[in-house]
Order: sequence, then structure tokens, then C-alpha cells
Amino acid sequence: MAEKAVKEITSMQDDFAQWYTDIVLKAELVDYSSVKGCVILRPYGYAIWENIQKYLDNMFKETGHENVYMPMFISETLLQREKDHVEGFAPEVAWVTHGGSEPLTERLCVRPTSETLFCEHYSHVIQSWRDLPKLYNQWCSVVRWEKTTRPFLRSREFLWQEGHTAHATAEEAIAETERMLNVYADFCENYLAMPVVKGRKTESDKFAGAEATYAIEALMHDGVALQAGTSHYFGDGFAKAFGIQFSNKNNQLQYVYQTSWGVSTRLIGAFIMVHGDNNGLVVPPRIAPYQIVIVPIAMHKPGVLEKAKELEISLKAAGFRVQVADGEQSPGWKFAEYEMKGVPVRLEIGPRDIENGSCVLARRDTSEKIIVSLDNLEQSLNTLLDDIHNSMYQKALAYRNAMTYIARNRDDLKQITAAGNGFVKTMWCGDEQCEIDIKTEFGIGTRCIPLEQEHLSDTCICCGRPAKYMVYWGKQY
Amino acid sequence: MAEKAVKEITSMQDDFAQWYTDIVLKAELVDYSSVKGCVILRPYGYAIWENIQKYLDNMFKETGHENVYMPMFISETLLQREKDHVEGFAPEVAWVTHGGSEPLTERLCVRPTSETLFCEHYSHVIQSWRDLPKLYNQWCSVVRWEKTTRPFLRSREFLWQEGHTAHATAEEAIAETERMLNVYADFCENYLAMPVVKGRKTESDKFAGAEATYAIEALMHDGVALQAGTSHYFGDGFAKAFGIQFSNKNNQLQYVYQTSWGVSTRLIGAFIMVHGDNNGLVVPPRIAPYQIVIVPIAMHKPGVLEKAKELEISLKAAGFRVQVADGEQSPGWKFAEYEMKGVPVRLEIGPRDIENGSCVLARRDTSEKIIVSLDNLEQSLNTLLDDIHNSMYQKALAYRNAMTYIARNRDDLKQITAAGNGFVKTMWCGDEQCEIDIKTEFGIGTRCIPLEQEHLSDTCICCGRPAKYMVYWGKQY
Repeated sequence: MAEKAVKEITSMQDDFAQWYTDIVLKAELVDYSSVKGCVILRPYGYAIWENIQKYLDNMFKETGHENVYMPMFISETLLQREKDHVEGFAPEVAWVTHGGSEPLTERLCVRPTSETLFCEHYSHVIQSWRDLPKLYNQWCSVVRWEKTTRPFLRSREFLWQEGHTAHATAEEAIAETERMLNVYADFCENYLAMPVVKGRKTESDKFAGAEATYAIEALMHDGVALQAGTSHYFGDGFAKAFGIQFSNKNNQLQYVYQTSWGVSTRLIGAFIMVHGDNNGLVVPPRIAPYQIVIVPIAMHKPGVLEKAKELEISLKAAGFRVQVADGEQSPGWKFAEYEMKGVPVRLEIGPRDIENGSCVLARRDTSEKIIVSLDNLEQSLNTLLDDIHNSMYQKALAYRNAMTYIARNRDDLKQITAAGNGFVKTMWCGDEQCEIDIKTEFGIGTRCIPLEQEHLSDTCICCGRPAKYMVYWGKQY
Repeated sequence: MAEKAVKEITSMQDDFAQWYTDIVLKAELVDYSSVKGCVILRPYGYAIWENIQKYLDNMFKETGHENVYMPMFISETLLQREKDHVEGFAPEVAWVTHGGSEPLTERLCVRPTSETLFCEHYSHVIQSWRDLPKLYNQWCSVVRWEKTTRPFLRSREFLWQEGHTAHATAEEAIAETERMLNVYADFCENYLAMPVVKGRKTESDKFAGAEATYAIEALMHDGVALQAGTSHYFGDGFAKAFGIQFSNKNNQLQYVYQTSWGVSTRLIGAFIMVHGDNNGLVVPPRIAPYQIVIVPIAMHKPGVLEKAKELEISLKAAGFRVQVADGEQSPGWKFAEYEMKGVPVRLEIGPRDIENGSCVLARRDTSEKIIVSLDNLEQSLNTLLDDIHNSMYQKALAYRNAMTYIARNRDDLKQITAAGNGFVKTMWCGDEQCEIDIKTEFGIGTRCIPLEQEHLSDTCICCGRPAKYMVYWGKQY
């Protein structure tokens, strides 16, 4: 009991924010550093990010993208080249002013995002239509000087990937923007077991310098939305600001059309708040650092630890990510520890199991236990891990659907928002003033104009004029 | 001819520095950015780094290390915690003084290395002997405000990995220092085909804060040495400065013993200058982004391009990294282009080859061509790639041996240094003044005290007093 108490966490019903903080610290995902807003990704947290990177990077490479690395510093002159972009980012960048003891002749910011650097490089390397498209991506850290910070959700430095592409035509660039939005949505569904809404951001929520911003929006367990990834279409605005021209097949000079798109370690915060429960983290099996933890029962009995290690070796060889909990703590302590860490499957093996040629498999997501034969253990585990993935996805989808409301008028909206958080779908005229009015009155903003439109009524929820779009509203992280 | 001229490079005999610059730019490894000393790693250059990362990371994980990510910022207070360390690094760090428009209350440096961050974290997470050893590594970029910069060799920002470990005893930490030095040497030999000398740095060349610094030293084609990796033993000095204590098995508080070790994108500069020639880059096959480039001959003839693509698919499926040069340029242009890029094997396939069921394989390192049957192509390629690796290594080793001289007295040293660059082996008393005197008189410094000692004479080359060590001298990058 004393052992278990160490890892006790706040219940999410009592205090969702504290529940979240307890999990990221006690599951050993992060540690705080002495620099505000900058966290340390500990081995378990970083291993999750490595898996996210591995699978996403494969998806990028399969769609023809190449990785590069840009400098982390941007000169003030370069940052200022595109007017909207600098206005959006200058207020939140960190400035380097000295190198050693010497003041710099021009101050440099630490990249908050790298559009300006990619554009400068593209202006060097794009000359002809033969050089297009350029489909580049980079994995790096970026810095944004946020006032309030929380691990994974909003931090002053965070890890991410940023894709930057250049195309000969607007059509191609728009297709790329959509393609990468779909890659992100597929990744969330197929690796994080997390349903997302694909949509376009309204004008007021666009990325600084973009013609259009698309996003995937997920709903957290507390009914608050989280923007989990974005994909931007730039038209030829950056190309004109940075002089990125190519000679087309008719030998005429023409500006390129560009996109950028990114996801970050925020994805980790997202799945924590979608799948986690009062016993701790629940890690989606396909990105789990350990998919299976083997807990030997009655470890002092002859043959038990040996059998556990033998299973570890054979399961590793079969491609599972697996760990043996061979510490001296009690099985009960280990059960709680790996529950807290959200390992998808616990495999229990003791003297009686060995005698019977079987073992116990316990699911983290539902706590169900099954007894399976050791003879076809690999197949049982493959099936079980897929089951877990699918049922985590279905559960999250059902929860999101239950928390998604339709409002056809202000009375609906008043009732829904008074009852609690969630997504609210309404019709909207497209006018920014209506977004402001609804935000003031009900405390919710537009999250996106979903790609899958529905017709709920003919008029805007706010002003009553003819509606242009169905939109999602909600609070957001 | 006009096509080829575009890619012409300076001969290394005429101007080695210009030859190097030509290669890194024309093989499309890097592009310059507008921030001095910060380069862009282009897709081909970054793909080399990705392969280096992949194989090294496997070696780290096989030796029990876990990856983490530390913040990029270090507060001035934290940097100052260990006296020698701050003295070594403060003169060359970049300082962040503002976040957005607000001045920071304490300035932050961008990490030049992360000992202080790891130590702060270790002081939080190490309590008991059960928490040891901690075997952590991180892949990241670091910043050092260098005056003179060259791509890969010395830049203001560079990519690297830094291992940081904490142990219960000095013996364990020393063993770790040596183990990682051996991992680096093995990697250089088995992946970069590059021989290195393993040795200890002299007192004057130690890392800031280390008790002992070990290094691997390679000899470039111009006879100048390059330090390709380092491994440091810290004793308990950092532990005392940062208060990293654990309770041992007797329940007594004790300080940990630490190490750190790192290699960087400098490894790319190293193999360029070891293997490159006047036709361009020569990439070691095991880390080459493309091990094989397939050049279709008479591409317009029916079936040629199809056969080339069919070979690409089957070779990729067999695990080779391969590309088809299907552009509209002439075969001659393609030969020169992929020679410049250093692709280990060129596979030529034309109508006559198809008829004969064979193809031509041309080696980048020796220019030799062989005709092989398509029936056992995979086996031929495996053998050939291993041959290339081995003969690149042997050639580099023979070159280094030929450029390594023995000096038993000042006259020897005078003759050797007058004749040109290279390693010089001499005996040394261990006194720093002798290092200074030799440097002043002959322009060479100690590179390392090699682990494999030889007895050349009884007395120091400089002062004539009894010798303690055999050392390597030379100029260095």
C-alpha cells in the first residue's frame, strides 16, 4: 500500500489540470528544468516521440519528401521580409544579442518557425521548372516566448517537424496542403487511436502570412479542443517577398507557390488527454515504447525469471517492443507502476502458468484479463494489440460524438455552453464580428470550418443573416 | 562538355581548402545561410547524417543507453556552477537577452554542450544506488560562437550527439569512457572506412571540467589531423558542484562519477578529406544515401528504362539504397554528376546488357568496371560494396601510415616538419612547456597520447629529460 501511494494521482473529475500534471511527471515523461517553460523529455517521454517521428517520417518519405536541416538563427532583416509573418511572430521570439562578450552587429532570433530560412534557401536553389517541386521537411526544436506554459501543450521550446514545399502551380500547392492534412489525420487515427476533425481555420485564426490554414482538431476528455496539427497554403506571397522565381517550360520567369505544415510534441499531450484515466497514462500500442511488460509472479521460484526472459527474447525477435519487470518490488507495485505508465499489455507469468503452458494477458485500456497458450502467443498478442488500438479509437470517437452538440439558435447555444464543454456545430455567415460576439457572450471560439460540411439551418447562429458555413466552436488549449 | 564544366572542382593538389569547399557545395551537401557560420544541410548532406545517426544510435542502444532531450537554454547561474567548465565555454556562447520585447531578468545562453543541464536533472532523479547507472544520450544542435568557420569542420551551430552518464564508482565511469571511445573508433572503421588513433589528450587539451579527455584522431589527405570524437571522464567534480548524491547499499550518501562523450557532423568533413579525390566526393558505402545509382544507357530504346526501374525495385526490396538516374541528361553528364556525389557503385544497363542478361558495375573508389550477370546481381553487389568498404579503409590506413613519421631528436623533427604535414611520433616528458616550445619552433601540437604506446627512445624530444609517453604531434583542423 505504501508503495502504491507514491504514485497516486489526482482524479480527473476533481481537477483535470492537476491530473494532467501528475501524469506527465509521475509516468516519468518530463522533468522541469530551471528555465521557465522548458522541460526535459525523459527516456520514456522521448521514446514516445522517437516512435512518433519514425512512423511520421516514413509517411513523409513515402509521399516523396526529403529531410534537411536549417540553422536555428534568423537575422532580424530576414524575419522582417514578409510583413504579416513578422507581425505574427516578432512579439514572441527569443533574441540573441551577444556572441561571447561581443555584441552582435545585428540581433538574431531563435527560429519560432522556419518559413524565412526555407524561402532564402529556395531562392538559391530553384532556377528552372526542373527543380520543382521541392518537398522538404525538417525535424528540430523551435522557440516561442509564451507567457503561460504546460508540458507538451505550450512550452517555450518544443520539438516538432516542419514541412516546406515549393510548386510550379497553385493547384499543386493546394493539393499538397490537403495531402499533408490527410497524412496527419491518418497518423492520428492509425497510430494515436485519436479521431480528429479536418477543417479550415477562419480568417482570424490563419497562420501569419498564409492564404489558408487547415488544421486537425481533437477533443480532449474535459471537452476542450486541441489543435493537433496545421497545414498552410501560402500562394505566391512568400515567393514574391523572397524573390523565388523559376523559368517555366515556356522559358518565362514565374513565382513558385508554397506550403508549410507541422506537428509537434503536442501530439503527446493530446493523446494523454484523450486516452488517459484515473490510473494514469494509456499509451496507444503502435507508438508505445513498450507494448508489453512481462511481470514474473513468484519470481523467486525456480524457472520463473528464466521463462520471463526467454519470452522477452522471443517476443523481441518477433518485432514486439517488450520489457521484463525484473526489479525486486512486489507484483502489486509493478502492476500499479506499469498501469501508471500506460503500457498496453501486461503479461503475467508464474509457476502455475508455466506448468499449464499459458500466461495471463491484461489490457491497460479495459483492465480485462485473458489466459492464452504460450504456443501461439505472438498471434494472440498481435490480435490483442490491434484490438486495443481499435477499441481505444472507437471509445474516443464515441466520447467525442457524445460531446459534440448542434445549436440552431442562441437559446440552444446558451443551454449547451451552460451545461459544460464540448464541440458545438452551428451555421455561420463568415463574418469575424460574429466570432467576436459569440466569444464574448458564450466564451467559445470557432475551431474550424470542417471539410465535411452539413446543413443545419439557413442562417448564422449569431446575426441571423444567410449562413455560408457550418463551423465547429469550442474552448481550446 | 558544357554540362560537365558546371561541376568542375579545384584540384586538391592546387588548393586543398578550395577543393574541400567546392565539394561540399557542388555535391550539394550544404548551402550557406545569411547568418555567418550557420550552414543549411541539404537533402544529400542530411541523408548522410541520418545514416550516421541511425547506425550510431543502434550502437548506443545496444550498449544500454537511452535517449532524452534537454532544453537548448542554460541560465547564466547554471552555467557558472562548475568553475572550469564556465571558463572554458563562456567566451564562445550566444546569449539570449530578450523574450519578445521584454528584457529577461537573467540572460540565457544557447547550449554549447549540456553537462550543466544533465547534472541539474541528475540531481533531481538520482537518489539511490538503484537509480544507477544513468546512461543517457541526446541528439541535438549546439552553438559555439567561433571566429573562423567552415562547413562541417567548425561552425557556429552544429548537429551532434552528447552522451552523459552517472555511475556509482570511478571504475565504472572510467570503463564507460573507454567503452564509448571504442564505440566511436569501431564506427569510424566499420561505417566510415576511416582509421583513427585512440588516445588521451594532454592536460592542456582537456575538456573544460574533465579529469581526463580521450579522443579519436584521424589524418586528412593534406596531412592535417582532425579530432573526430571525444570521451571525457569527470570523476566526481561535477557531482560535487551540482550536489548529485545517492545512498549506497550501506545507506551512506555518496557522489556519483560521470562521463560525457560526443561526435558531430564533423565526421562528414572527416571522411570527405580522407576519401575524396579530384573527381569529387567518395562516400563510404555503409552510410551512403545511395549505394548504387542505376544509369540507363540509350534510354530512349524500348525496355531500357523499364528494366532500370525493375532493377531499382528488386534491389530496394533486397535492402540496397538505390536511385535511378532517369533525367534527360546524357549518360556522360550523369557519370560525372554521380562521381561528384561519390555514389559507391554505378550500375549501367543498356540494350546490349539486357540482351546478355548482364550489367556493368563501376566502382567510384577505383574507377574499375566489371560485367556481372543479372541472375546473381544482389550477391555481386553485396560483395562489391564490402570490397569497396574494405579497400577504402586499407587505402586510408596505408596513406596514414605513409604520412606518420618517427622523430627521435630535434633534427629529425626539423626535417620531417620542413618536408610537409603528417603525424609525428616522439617521446615526451609530459611537461606543458615542452608542448609550447615545440609548437613555437615547429608549428605542431600534441594530438594525443595514444593508448597503444611504443618505446622510441628514453628522452623527451624537446628537453632531453626522461620521457613519460610516446605522443602524436601534428597540425590540426
